[in-house]
Amino acid sequence: MTEFPKTSQNRIKRLPKRGYYDSETIYKILDEALICHVGFVENKQPFIIPINFARVNDTIILHGAKASRLLKHIEAGNPVCIEVTLVDGLVLARSVFHHSINYRSVVLFGSGQTIEDDQDKMAALEAVTEHIVPGRWGEARLPNRKELNATSVVSIRIDQASAKVRSGPPGDEEEDYALPIWAGVLPLQEMPLSPKRDELMTQNIAVPKYIAKYSRKQK
Amino acid sequence: MTEFPKTSQNRIKRLPKRGYYDSETIYKILDEALICHVGFVENKQPFIIPINFARVNDTIILHGAKASRLLKHIEAGNPVCIEVTLVDGLVLARSVFHHSINYRSVVLFGSGQTIEDDQDKMAALEAVTEHIVPGRWGEARLPNRKELNATSVVSIRIDQASAKVRSGPPGDEEEDYALPIWAGVLPLQEMPLSPKRDELMTQNIAVPKYIAKYSRKQK
Repeated sequence: MTEFPKTSQNRIKRLPKRGYYDSETIYKILDEALICHVGFVENKQPFIIPINFARVNDTIILHGAKASRLLKHIEAGNPVCIEVTLVDGLVLARSVFHHSINYRSVVLFGSGQTIEDDQDKMAALEAVTEHIVPGRWGEARLPNRKELNATSVVSIRIDQASAKVRSGPPGDEEEDYALPIWAGVLPLQEMPLSPKRDELMTQNIAVPKYIAKYSRKQK
Repeated sequence: MTEFPKTSQNRIKRLPKRGYYDSETIYKILDEALICHVGFVENKQPFIIPINFARVNDTIILHGAKASRLLKHIEAGNPVCIEVTLVDGLVLARSVFHHSINYRSVVLFGSGQTIEDDQDKMAALEAVTEHIVPGRWGEARLPNRKELNATSVVSIRIDQASAKVRSGPPGDEEEDYALPIWAGVLPLQEMPLSPKRDELMTQNIAVPKYIAKYSRKQK
């Protein structure tokens, strides 16, 4: 476990007791999140693009079409901000003011570089595929030369990062606890529903175990 | 229904057939999302902060502590990018290359201003509360003078916006359809679990209907 230094960029200013800077907390949140939000600047204008990803050690892997504006921007070495948020529940306080959301979020900063080497590129694509569905890389048809050529893969080293976590029951003003208002937490969780078989499947193949028992929490 | 003009900022460049520019599609996605991701620029550095919000007509309402860096930045009139993404499922193709995620996302651009008037501020806070839990504003203890003074509320007019939507089964290469690989979609949905009553509740109050039957889809 490493500790990211607190800087003016990553330090949690609002409610600092909710801030975490250790890699264990930060990586766990990143690994559970399905997609991340990538922020970048072009002509002084902020942009955000949602995209799937993988964390490999202290880097974030992104991939996409060669023509992708986001990837070209990252390949040029520009700074990016990457954020993920897991929503865990609604916090229903007695007062409107103390309503909140239970969540775990990470904000990180870094800049990227292209992964050029074929073997490294395949390893990165494996990480991205396995991040979405662990077990899938060993079963799906792997990228061929043409597909590999059409794909850009970038690696962004996490230079600075912090997590922010809110959990537990509402906190109300002392005098409000006696009010006749239901208070508590409504937990929310992203859950898989029944898998939908592609109608164009020509063979009768059972749903793989890694799909039938899919859960982001298992990781 | 209005149509947002396509500009160099909001035009969907990758897979333009997935792009939507009409307010109906865009507002429906915004209204279903629980939180948004706000991107802004400080000293050429991109930042993203996740935050809850509400849409009121063609504006996005954000609120927070008076001391919030994000809100101060918005109050100063700086441009922001706001993004929301709803994940609908994992798209399992036969080839790794055609794996995808079913999603509905919105990216919008605008700049904000402070809501100063008390009545307008209360209306905006009502919208934010009702966006999280419809029905809650009428039951919870409303903000008092001290709380209202401690809260900043901003309204961001949506100047430009677009949605991007991917749905349906995987699309594979012609020659891959015969491969003995399970293909299809694993739907994902953010679902409420059983409400957790605050242990500090002093009275025996039933779980309100708007909590027991909570769903973001109902809107």
